[in-house]
Order: sequence, then C-alpha cells, then structure tokens
Amino acid sequence: MPADGTTITFLSDFGLADPFVGVCHAVIARLAPSATVIDLTHGVPPRDVAAAAVTLADCVGYLPMGVHLAVVDPGVGTARAGVVIDAGGHLLVGPDNGLLVPAAERLGGTRGLWELSAPAYRLTPVSKTFHGRDVFAPAAAHLASGVAPAALGPARDPGDLVRLTLPSPLLSEDQVSGEVVLVDRFGNAALNVLATDLAAAGLQAGDRIAVRADSASADATVTDTFAGVAVGELAVLVDSFGRAALAVNGGDAAGLLSARRGTHITLSRRPD
Amino acid sequence: MPADGTTITFLSDFGLADPFVGVCHAVIARLAPSATVIDLTHGVPPRDVAAAAVTLADCVGYLPMGVHLAVVDPGVGTARAGVVIDAGGHLLVGPDNGLLVPAAERLGGTRGLWELSAPAYRLTPVSKTFHGRDVFAPAAAHLASGVAPAALGPARDPGDLVRLTLPSPLLSEDQVSGEVVLVDRFGNAALNVLATDLAAAGLQAGDRIAVRADSASADATVTDTFAGVAVGELAVLVDSFGRAALAVNGGDAAGLLSARRGTHITLSRRPD
Amino acid sequence: MPADGTTITFLSDFGLADPFVGVCHAVIARLAPSATVIDLTHGVPPRDVAAAAVTLADCVGYLPMGVHLAVVDPGVGTARAGVVIDAGGHLLVGPDNGLLVPAAERLGGTRGLWELSAPAYRLTPVSKTFHGRDVFAPAAAHLASGVAPAALGPARDPGDLVRLTLPSPLLSEDQVSGEVVLVDRFGNAALNVLATDLAAAGLQAGDRIAVRADSASADATVTDTFAGVAVGELAVLVDSFGRAALAVNGGDAAGLLSARRGTHITLSRRPD
Repeated sequence: MPADGTTITFLSDFGLADPFVGVCHAVIARLAPSATVIDLTHGVPPRDVAAAAVTLADCVGYLPMGVHLAVVDPGVGTARAGVVIDAGGHLLVGPDNGLLVPAAERLGGTRGLWELSAPAYRLTPVSKTFHGRDVFAPAAAHLASGVAPAALGPARDPGDLVRLTLPSPLLSEDQVSGEVVLVDRFGNAALNVLATDLAAAGLQAGDRIAVRADSASADATVTDTFAGVAVGELAVLVDSFGRAALAVNGGDAAGLLSARRGTHITLSRRPD
Repeated sequence: MPADGTTITFLSDFGLADPFVGVCHAVIARLAPSATVIDLTHGVPPRDVAAAAVTLADCVGYLPMGVHLAVVDPGVGTARAGVVIDAGGHLLVGPDNGLLVPAAERLGGTRGLWELSAPAYRLTPVSKTFHGRDVFAPAAAHLASGVAPAALGPARDPGDLVRLTLPSPLLSEDQVSGEVVLVDRFGNAALNVLATDLAAAGLQAGDRIAVRADSASADATVTDTFAGVAVGELAVLVDSFGRAALAVNGGDAAGLLSARRGTHITLSRRPD
Repeated sequence: MPADGTTITFLSDFGLADPFVGVCHAVIARLAPSATVIDLTHGVPPRDVAAAAVTLADCVGYLPMGVHLAVVDPGVGTARAGVVIDAGGHLLVGPDNGLLVPAAERLGGTRGLWELSAPAYRLTPVSKTFHGRDVFAPAAAHLASGVAPAALGPARDPGDLVRLTLPSPLLSEDQVSGEVVLVDRFGNAALNVLATDLAAAGLQAGDRIAVRADSASADATVTDTFAGVAVGELAVLVDSFGRAALAVNGGDAAGLLSARRGTHITLSRRPD
C-alpha cells in the first residue's frame, strides 16, 4: 500500500499551455506534501481516451510502484464514475471510461476496484468541469499519503469497468494490416501491431516491404534502428515499446504517408 | 514566514521550447536546494501581463502557502521595479507591472510590499534582459529559505503598486456583455463574466442564449457540464474557476466563434 | 563525486507531447529515488545536435553541481558510443556525437571520460531506438546515487571525443558576420557572435546598424534592453547568455528578418 513519500505519476490531455496541470500539482502538494509527482505526459490529443489508454499501458511497466493518475475525461460532470484500481499493488486513479483498463491488464489485472465518491476526499465544492483538480488529484494525493482505497468509496466488481474496443491487427502470410495508434514528435508512426505479430507474419530484418496507407504508399525496409536505412528512406522497425512503427531516417514518416492516429496501414513483404 | 522546504510556484510566459524555465529552476536549486518548485504554467501568451494576472488570480486559491514567482516582463531592464508582496502570508514575487495585484487581492490584499534591490540577493552580474533568472528566481529562492522580505529591499507603500485596468462586464436584464480573457487548449473561451454576473442578469440553466462575438454568432444553451448539450453544440457554462465560458461538447468553441483573447461577447437570453 | 540527493539536469529533443521525458523520469525515480531532476529543456529541434550543444554550453554555468543528462541522438542504436564526461566535478552523460563537448569546455575541460557499456547499469533489454530510457537515464541515475563513472565502462582518451564544427563569426572594423544559432519563443535570434566580438568590431551602444539576413534586411540600433528601442523597432543587444541577438521591442525579430537557425547575418555600423 503506498505511503507518504510515494510517487504519483500523472498523464492527461490538459496540455501545458494552461494552468490545469500546475493546479493539480498544487492540490497534490497541499494534501500530500511529501509525495513526488512525475508528469508522464500531458500531450495526449484532447479527449482521446483510446490514445491515452495505449500510452499509459505502453509506459506502465517503467513506472515506479505508486499511484498513477490519468485524466482524459470528456464525460466530466456526467454520471460516469471516478475509480481507483489496484493492479499488482499499483493504484490507478481516473475516470471509468476505459482509460485505465489496458494498463491494469499489463500490471496483472484488476484485483480491486473502488468508486471515488467519499466527499471527505474531494475538494469542496466539486466543479462540474474539472474533476482532475477536484476529485482525481485529491484521490491520488490521499492514496499516496496512505489512505486505503476502500476509504474513498464503495468497492465495485471489476467486471463492471467500462472497456474500450481497441482495434486488432489482421495477420496473414507475408502481410500485416493494422492502424496507426500514436504519432510522435519525430513523425514516427506506431501501429497496433506488435513485434510478435510481425514475426507471426514472417516479416523479418532486411525484408523489403510495400507500405500502403489510406492515401499514400511507399517502399520500406525492415530494420532495427532509425539509421538502418539511408537518410530519407522509410523503415519498418520495432519501437522501444514493442510496437511495429514506420520511421524515416532523419525525416517524418507520418508526413510521408499522410498518416495520423487511425490511419489504416498494410505491410506486405515484396518478393525478393 | 516561509522557511526551508517551502513550495515555490512559478508562472511565466517563457514557454518550454527554450531553456529559460529550466535555468530558473537550476538557479533556485542552487540557492534553496530543499524548496519544491511547482510550474503553474509557462504558456501565458508572450508579454501578455493581463492574461498572466487573470490566470494567477484564478489559481491562487488552490496554491499551497509559499512563494509565488510570476514573470511576464516586457519592461525588463527598464526602470520598472521588482517587488515582493506579502498577501495573507503568501509571498508574491515578480515585476511591478500589475501582474501580481489581482492575485494579492484574492488573498486578502497587500499587507506588505518591498522592492527587490539588495545586490546580495541577486545573481552577479544582473543581465538587462532576463530578470527571471537574475533577480526574481533568486529572490523567490531566498524567501523560500527563510530570508525576510525586508532584507531584499526597502518597504514601499502598497498604494504605489502599478495596477492593470481589467475590463468589466456590462449587465442588463437577460443580457451580459463582456470579453474573452482566456482560451484554453480545448477551445473553451472564458469570459470576464462571473457566475454571479450570469445570475444577476437572470440567465440560468436551460436558458437558450444568442451568442454574438465580434465576427460570428451562434445559439447556445446554459448548462453545467460539457456534455450537457449534444456533441458539436455550443454551451454557456460556469467553468471550474467560476467564470462564464463558451464550450462546444467535443469541439472548439473559440474556433466556432472566431474568438480569442479580447474578443467581445454578448450573451442574450432568447424568448422561450 | 555526486551522491544520493544529487541533482540531475535533463535536456533533450524529445518534446513534451509524447511520454519519452516522463518515462525517463520514471526510470530515474526507480534507480535513484532521492535524486532531484530538473528539466533544462526538451524543446531542442528534433535531431539538432548542434543546437543542443549550444544550449547546454550556454546554460551549464547556471546549473548546480551534479549530473547533466543530455540526449539528442539521431545515431541511436548504431556504433556511436554513450559516454560520461567528468568536467570540473560535474558529470555529463549522453551520446558521443559532440553534444557534450562545448559544455565540458565551459566547465574547464574534460578531465575524465568513460564509455557507457557495463550491462549492469543499463535496463534489460536495451532497445535500439530509445537509449535515453535504457542507457542514458539509468547511467545518470546510478551516477547520482554515487556509482563511480569508472564502474559504467572503460576509460577513454578525451582526445577521441567526437567534436562538432561550430561556425565562427567574421570580424572586421565596424562589421560582424555570423549566423543565427537559436531562435526563442519571443522571436529573438541569438547569433554565434559574443559580446566580445561586438566590442572587437567597435560596435557599441547607440550605434545604428544595417542588418542583412539571407533574404531580408533592416536597420537596427545597438541597445541593452528590449525596451531600448521604440515598440516595433529592431535592436541589436547582448542577450542574457552573452550572445549578440536581434530583438524587436514587443515583436518578432526572427519573423521580421525571415531568420532561423543557420541564417547568415551581417551587422554593419552605419555612418553617423
């Protein structure tokens, strides 16, 4: 169970141009002055719960034991609940809209679930438009200070959690079809295709690949580093989170392929 | 009086693309290694003292007791003074250009004011273009370490503080006119109109509102959550800082109304 | 030698839209829970090793004694080494691509150099595309915890370090030619021209200057503050890092001159 001195990680779609993230830090500092807060990212595309869920799940294995606060919450102020999940001793805090579930699964699954409803552990009054500040950050702070999850509200059945339907890739011999799940600052486009999927389709280092996107296509080479192809050339590689990704050495693969989140991508091995 | 271990909050228009914020953190870490620094936001529009003043005032009630460093300083290097204000035990540090005054008022008013002039509490040499690093961050760090404000320079009369003229809304029956004071990442446009102003004009939940902006107009509904109108529809709601705001459920209200900081907005109740 | 409780500063081109920076913070928190991490900036233009080298060197004099982690690494996964440099007791950690050398020189030169190769001080497995997370952040964390640099890998000859060729300014009487090395959020354009270069060319406060850029030109005045010229006018001043810079009072000098990193600039004193 976390105790004072615990780390709280924090992911949101709040961006950093406004004071939303800073105010949540301030609320945490008042309630749990000895907790350490690590900003995982606040650059999730606005209101994109699925992108947040993928990012949190991809990163959660690197996070220290502690409380993981994640807020992408287009339904703020409606009947959707706020929850805390115990997953392998980690405590995940956020809205019950599917955001937390893939991370909980990476941590071994939900072994406890509680609703965030106890007024004593919220700010007063609770606004209808910023539960990050008024409900979720206070909950994370109290948990980091050693308050038991069960004090924050009634236990619920993990089977009741809202779950996202995340797209699955299609595999066949010499071909994988999937979609872009994340585009990063460098223009690298990560797919809903794992290293194991590439292997299952028989695609391996050195293979020449025909890449088809929704509105563009290009040839690529399967490699293992950005610099494994010539400058300006397209590579298919396994990125640092275990996902197949499209990357241009020194360039912008998403731009080259007019690809963004949700763009369909087919990778087909070309005959030698 | 703050002492070692104190929290310093930090707001500026420095952005995060350059090392300005990081260097200020480094200066503070050298002078007050046990202080904790919380970045409130550094995304204030460049040189926009009034936007910074509104943001700091809106947030200050959520900040822990401590030192609040705020730097938006187009007059850096000129005769404008740097000051520290004692407001309810909080210490506000920044340029004397109006930035700090609305926050001090929210904290109960200025009960002490000192100029930042003592060379011992500045870096040497002091540049003419970056007092954030050379004057204000060192002052905040020394204050957080327990140095008395009076050690930093001579006391001044609070009545001498430079004050901004912030626009006031116009209220009549069934109508409020004001202007946009902040646009956030989600496209929500907050007005210089408070919840109490809406009430005074008789506008309430469920009312249909004609919204006129400088170069666009639209119909809206008064609601209390983003999801209180259909997806894509415009809402007038009270945001989490107590301001009337225009928001589109799942969309971009500022874009819809071509609104930005300073855009005039009139909200008129439509007959049922 | 740094020990537990040490500060780690962190500069990269990772941006803040993705979780790369946050994951590195998490890795450090697991390995060195009592280290403090200061983000110097993560806004270095993608893959721009020279911009990062200039920024780190300009800032290093303001940083607390400690470990300085810097990652701009287009060659990640190739044969380029990772290194730790001891410079005046500070430990600089990053790729051996020239990034760290100018900062080491500002700190008095490289007095020790070691390769980062010991598997015990890396994450397992090491990805081929994110050594920030898997090699450099762990090295910084272990160093901050008191591990000796020599434990991280074999010593190397400082003469073997990869060095960047940074452009030098050309000086003549009444004229300086150089190039833009950094453009900041405010549109100020810093040059590879130092205060001493301006003095050597005889340019001084009050001088009228003809400024020629690659595709634009304008008149300027040598001043010492942004407000030393009228609003909208162009100034040549010495910025807070000791560089000659072009600035418009209340405006955007880089925009006015269509200048960006690498743009050639000539400053010529105009006859009175």
